[in-house]
Formats: sequence, C-alpha cells, structure tokens
Amino acid sequence: MQISARNQLKGKITSITLGSVMAEVVVTLPDGQEIVSAITRHSAESLNLKNGDEAVAIIKSTEVMIGKNP
Amino acid sequence: MQISARNQLKGKITSITLGSVMAEVVVTLPDGQEIVSAITRHSAESLNLKNGDEAVAIIKSTEVMIGKNP
Amino acid sequence: MQISARNQLKGKITSITLGSVMAEVVVTLPDGQEIVSAITRHSAESLNLKNGDEAVAIIKSTEVMIGKNP
Amino acid sequence: MQISARNQLKGKITSITLGSVMAEVVVTLPDGQEIVSAITRHSAESLNLKNGDEAVAIIKSTEVMIGKNP
Amino acid sequence: MQISARNQLKGKITSITLGSVMAEVVVTLPDGQEIVSAITRHSAESLNLKNGDEAVAIIKSTEVMIGKNP
Amino acid sequence: MQISARNQLKGKITSITLGSVMAEVVVTLPDGQEIVSAITRHSAESLNLKNGDEAVAIIKSTEVMIGKNP
Repeated sequence: MQISARNQLKGKITSITLGSVMAEVVVTLPDGQEIVSAITRHSAESLNLKNGDEAVAIIKSTEVMIGKNP
Repeated sequence: MQISARNQLKGKITSITLGSVMAEVVVTLPDGQEIVSAITRHSAESLNLKNGDEAVAIIKSTEVMIGKNP
Repeated sequence: MQISARNQLKGKITSITLGSVMAEVVVTLPDGQEIVSAITRHSAESLNLKNGDEAVAIIKSTEVMIGKNP
Repeated sequence: MQISARNQLKGKITSITLGSVMAEVVVTLPDGQEIVSAITRHSAESLNLKNGDEAVAIIKSTEVMIGKNP
Repeated sequence: MQISARNQLKGKITSITLGSVMAEVVVTLPDGQEIVSAITRHSAESLNLKNGDEAVAIIKSTEVMIGKNP
Repeated sequence: MQISARNQLKGKITSITLGSVMAEVVVTLPDGQEIVSAITRHSAESLNLKNGDEAVAIIKSTEVMIGKNP
C-alpha cells in the first residue's frame, strides 16, 4: 500500500521503551540522526518491533513545523 | 527557546508554494532527503521564508508513525 | 509495508477537491459513512487519486478524540 | 456544542486501558470496525468512560491520511 | 456532547480567511490573545462561522508542545 | 529560533505527571486558564521542566479545532 504521508525516513530501530499504554521507538537514520516516535504499545507489539529492525519513520506534512534562526 | 519537540532536522529550504491559506515548504537535508511541511501562508510570511534559507523541520514525537516491511 | 497507525478504514473515494496547496478527499465506507481527509495536493497527485478508487483512510490513535453525551 | 472536526463515528466503548498518563480507548462501530484512541488518563476519567458507553470517535480532517494499493 | 480534548479556550471570531480547500479562523480570547486555527473550508461553512461569533478553540493535549527559555 | 507554530501561550508550569513513556504537563496562563500538554517523558526530562517554571504552550494551527454553540 502506498500512503499519502510524504515524509518517509528509512533507518534502523535502536531503542524501544514500553509503557503500559504508549511506547517510544527511536529510529536512527543512516547519517546518525535519531527520529523519536510515540505510538501505542499495542502498535509496537502488533508490528513486533525489535532493536535492529529496518523501519520507516512516517510523518504527515501537516505535522511538520518550520524553525528559522533570525 | 528550547522546545519539547524532539525531532529537529536541519536543512535548507528548496521550495515554497503559497496558496491562499496554506503554504507548502520543502526542507532538503544535507543527505538530499526532502522533508515536506504544510503550514499556514501567514506563518511562511511572518518567518519570511525564502529558498536557500537554513531552516529546521520540527516534528512532535506523537506525530511520527512507524512502518515495517513484513 | 505495515504501518503502526491502527485505524485503517477501507472505502471508495467519492470526492476530490484540489486547492493550490491542499486537497480534500472524501472516502465513503461500505456503510455509507464519509471520512474526510485533508492532504497536500501533491500527495493526491502522486497517488493519482481518482473518484471511484478503492482507498484506505488511515488515522494514528493519538489523533482520535472521544465524545460522550452526558 | 458543534465542532469543526468533520469525522464523527458513533459506536460503543469496548475496551479501556489506563496507564499512568495515557489511556487507550477502543470504540467499536455498528459494523464491527474498531477505532483506537489514545487520550490522557485524566480525559478518560473526567468523561467517566466505561465499557458499554455510547461514544463518538472524533477526528480532524487534517489528521487523516489516504492509502492506496497500486 | 462532552469531548475528551482538554483544552477549550473561549473567545470571539475576529478573522476568517477562506481558501479553496482550507480556511484560517482567528479566535481572540478575552485577554486579547489570538488563537489561529486551520480547518477545512467546508467545516467553516457548515458551522456558518462569522466574525463576532462566540467560539471555542479546541486542542487535544497530545498536540501541545512545551517551550522553555534556558 | 523562531518557529512557524503560531499559537504560543506563555504561563507557568503548575503540574507535572511522569509516566514511563509519556508526561502530562499543565501550563497555567496569567488569567488562570490551564493548558494541558502530553509530551514524552524524555522531553520533559531533557527540558528539565519543574513546577513554577515559566513555559510556553506551543500549538500548530492545523491542530486547533473550532467549536460553536448553535
């Protein structure tokens, strides 16, 4: 399935922290940049996410802000 | 000001499309990856965004999904 | 690719409105319920969305609110 | 109060999981489709959500992505 | 209907800008603070929003970031 | 850094609840209005948020809905 979210950053999962409802998943990109994701614990479990897995951080354009130094 | 949004990706603005209400801004990262942002036109204008500007794409962790190939 | 977004509602595209930056896409579910999506025009074009297409409305759990009548 | 969020799906609450900060609430629609919501625990408590309650899953259009099989 | 979104700020609508797909609505709070909202044009029209209307800006907690000066 | 998010409400932190993955932070505005934010625990810790801190609640316009009484 192709999805409309235009930002799809490929990397490897390097950290998973499970809470009772939510999970924090870190995807490290090839250049070392880390992307942090907060998803439900159930999502992390149903995708069977594990450290070292190849994964994609997906972000809808309307969720991206722009910062600029004056 | 430091902000809680943990994903802050530095790059250069390489495209700005202005609509009547919204604007699409593309930030190209050093490795060539493009990040697409949809913000209000007023935001783009009040930050005076221009092609070639250094900028930061900022994303709250709760907005990041994870994709995985089975 | 499997994605972490847990809400995936299958239907048919019944309306597409293109603006200069954004597009509104309506997905009608089998029971007649309409789901309205606002994505970038570029996303709608790159997916080549057309009326009658089978499509999936995808929603991250953290974006869903709950309403209740007292 | 009427709200601008255009996606309002009526169903019954069929699962509530409480964490220390967040809560996961599942609303099952009449056709059996489940909608998963992640809200704060305080929200779940202040609405006094219980299994079997009639509830509405509310989603802003800008949060809905579109998927399409090629 | 009560909704789970915990941030509900009452004010008056002081500006509406309509695009082809999106609309920008400004709600001015009693203390003069402006809250800017980007919703679909169809939402603005179906709520029949007009300047001077009393309105509520509604924000889900997971959408609120925190900034702090060091 | 200036950021595109147009809603920036200044106040003081009056409550912090830490979960294993998420944290709830309450910012009280000068007029007594409370803004509730759900961010990751790691964000709260890396900003070293404490009760009494001056802080800014930051909200992207596309995340703000409008409610209206009929």
